[in-house]
Amino acid sequence: MQRYFLKNEAIKGKKALIRGGDHHHIRNVMRMRSGDNVSLCDEDGNAFLAEIAEIRTEETLLNILEKIESESELGAAVTIAMGLVRREKQEEVLRRITELGAAGFLTVSMERSVVKAREKSAHLERQKRIAKEAAEQSQRRRIPNVYGNLSFEEFLDFSDQFEIRIFAYEERAHEKDAAFKRLIRASLGKEVLVLVGPEGGISPGEADALKERGFVSVGLGPRILRVETAPLYIMSAFGYELELEDES
Amino acid sequence: MQRYFLKNEAIKGKKALIRGGDHHHIRNVMRMRSGDNVSLCDEDGNAFLAEIAEIRTEETLLNILEKIESESELGAAVTIAMGLVRREKQEEVLRRITELGAAGFLTVSMERSVVKAREKSAHLERQKRIAKEAAEQSQRRRIPNVYGNLSFEEFLDFSDQFEIRIFAYEERAHEKDAAFKRLIRASLGKEVLVLVGPEGGISPGEADALKERGFVSVGLGPRILRVETAPLYIMSAFGYELELEDES
Repeated sequence: MQRYFLKNEAIKGKKALIRGGDHHHIRNVMRMRSGDNVSLCDEDGNAFLAEIAEIRTEETLLNILEKIESESELGAAVTIAMGLVRREKQEEVLRRITELGAAGFLTVSMERSVVKAREKSAHLERQKRIAKEAAEQSQRRRIPNVYGNLSFEEFLDFSDQFEIRIFAYEERAHEKDAAFKRLIRASLGKEVLVLVGPEGGISPGEADALKERGFVSVGLGPRILRVETAPLYIMSAFGYELELEDES
Repeated sequence: MQRYFLKNEAIKGKKALIRGGDHHHIRNVMRMRSGDNVSLCDEDGNAFLAEIAEIRTEETLLNILEKIESESELGAAVTIAMGLVRREKQEEVLRRITELGAAGFLTVSMERSVVKAREKSAHLERQKRIAKEAAEQSQRRRIPNVYGNLSFEEFLDFSDQFEIRIFAYEERAHEKDAAFKRLIRASLGKEVLVLVGPEGGISPGEADALKERGFVSVGLGPRILRVETAPLYIMSAFGYELELEDES
C-alpha cells in the first residue's frame, strides 16, 4: 500500500487532506480513485489506514479508518555519516539505508575525499526528496534527517549530540572485533552515530581525533567493503541484532 | 594490494606466471613494475604474497614470498538466488554480495518476474567477470559461482544439493521471526541457498512448492526491503552473526 507523510495539521480527527506533490502522485501517477486505501504518517510517527473519499483538482480528501499499531521503526536511532564521495553514491546509500531503518544521513569532507563539496541547497533538497520517497516505499513511520555535508571539524561538534559514536576503521578489517556487537546491543533507545570513511579510508590523524572525541573504532569483518557497501552492512547488522527474535 | 586469481598450474613452487587479461591489468592498467607486491589466489583458495620479478610483453613473472594465512572467507557457503529482475540490478547485487562473502549467485524466472530471460552466454560471461573483479577488490579467496538463470522447476531441482534452504517471504515481513537467526547459527560449514522474490514477491503457489521442497520461510524485519536490498541484508546478517566475535 502506498504511504504518504503528512504535516500534523493535514490530519483533523477522522479526516485528512493531501495537497501538492502527494496529491499529484495520487491523482496522476498512481491514478487512484475514491475508495482506494493508502496509509498516512504524521510528524509524530503515528501511522493510519485511510480511504480516499474524494479526489478534487487541487486536493485529495481522505477518511481515516484506523490507527496502524505495528512498529516499523528500528529500536535505535542510527545516523550514518560517510566520507564525501560522488553524488550518485551518496544518493544510493541514502536510499538503501532509509529502507534499512536509518534515522539520519550526512556526508563529511575528509582528508582522503577526492570529491569537493558543492554548493548544496539544491542537492540537499534532492536528498530530502529521496529520503521521503524511500521512507514511503519501505513503510517507514519517519523520514530520516538529511544534514548535507560538514567539514571534519563541524562533524566533530555535530557528534556531541549522540550517545554512541562509532567509526568503521579499515585497519581493523582483518581482526575479529567484538566492539561492534557490544555497541549494537547497547543501542536500544539511543541516538547512535556511525562514520565510514571515503574511498581512501579514514586517515590516522582523523582516527586519533575521533577517538579523542569519544568515538569507538570497530571492524566490519575480514573482507574489504566498498564505501557504498559498508553503510548497508552496518544498518543490516542493527536490524538483524535488534529486530529479529532469538529463539532461546 | 591488488589480488589476482590464478589457475593452479600458473603457480609452480615459488614462481608464478600471469598471462592474458590479468597480465594486461598489471602492465597497462595498474602500470606496476618489478619489485611491486601483489597477492595471488589459486583455485583451492590458497592466498600468497608475491613480488613481480619481470614484466614481459606477453606475461608477468612473479616470485612467491609467503603464504597468507588470514581467512577472508565466510564460514558458511551462501548462494543467493533472486527472482529474475533487470540485468543492471542483477549485476549490482552480484557485485555487492561478492564483497559480502557470497559463495554463489543465480536468478530464477518466477511467476511475478516482469523481465523475460534472455539468451545468456554473453550475459553469463559478463557476470563471471563481475564476480572475479569484485572478489579481487574485496580480497576474497574464492570467486563466487555464477549459475545464470533457471526456471522455477529447474531451481527446485538445483536446490537439492544444498543443506539449508531458505526463502525470504514478504508475508512474514511484519512479524518478528526467530527462524532466520536460528538457521544462520546452524550454517557454519554448510551449503546454504537463500531465495528472494522478484519485485512483485513470491506467489503463494511458489511459496507452497518451496516449503514442500524443504525450504524454510523467514522474515527480514518490519520494513519492506527492495529486491536489490534484501540480498545485502541477508549476506550482512551471515557475516555479522558468524564473523564478528561476541564479547562474553
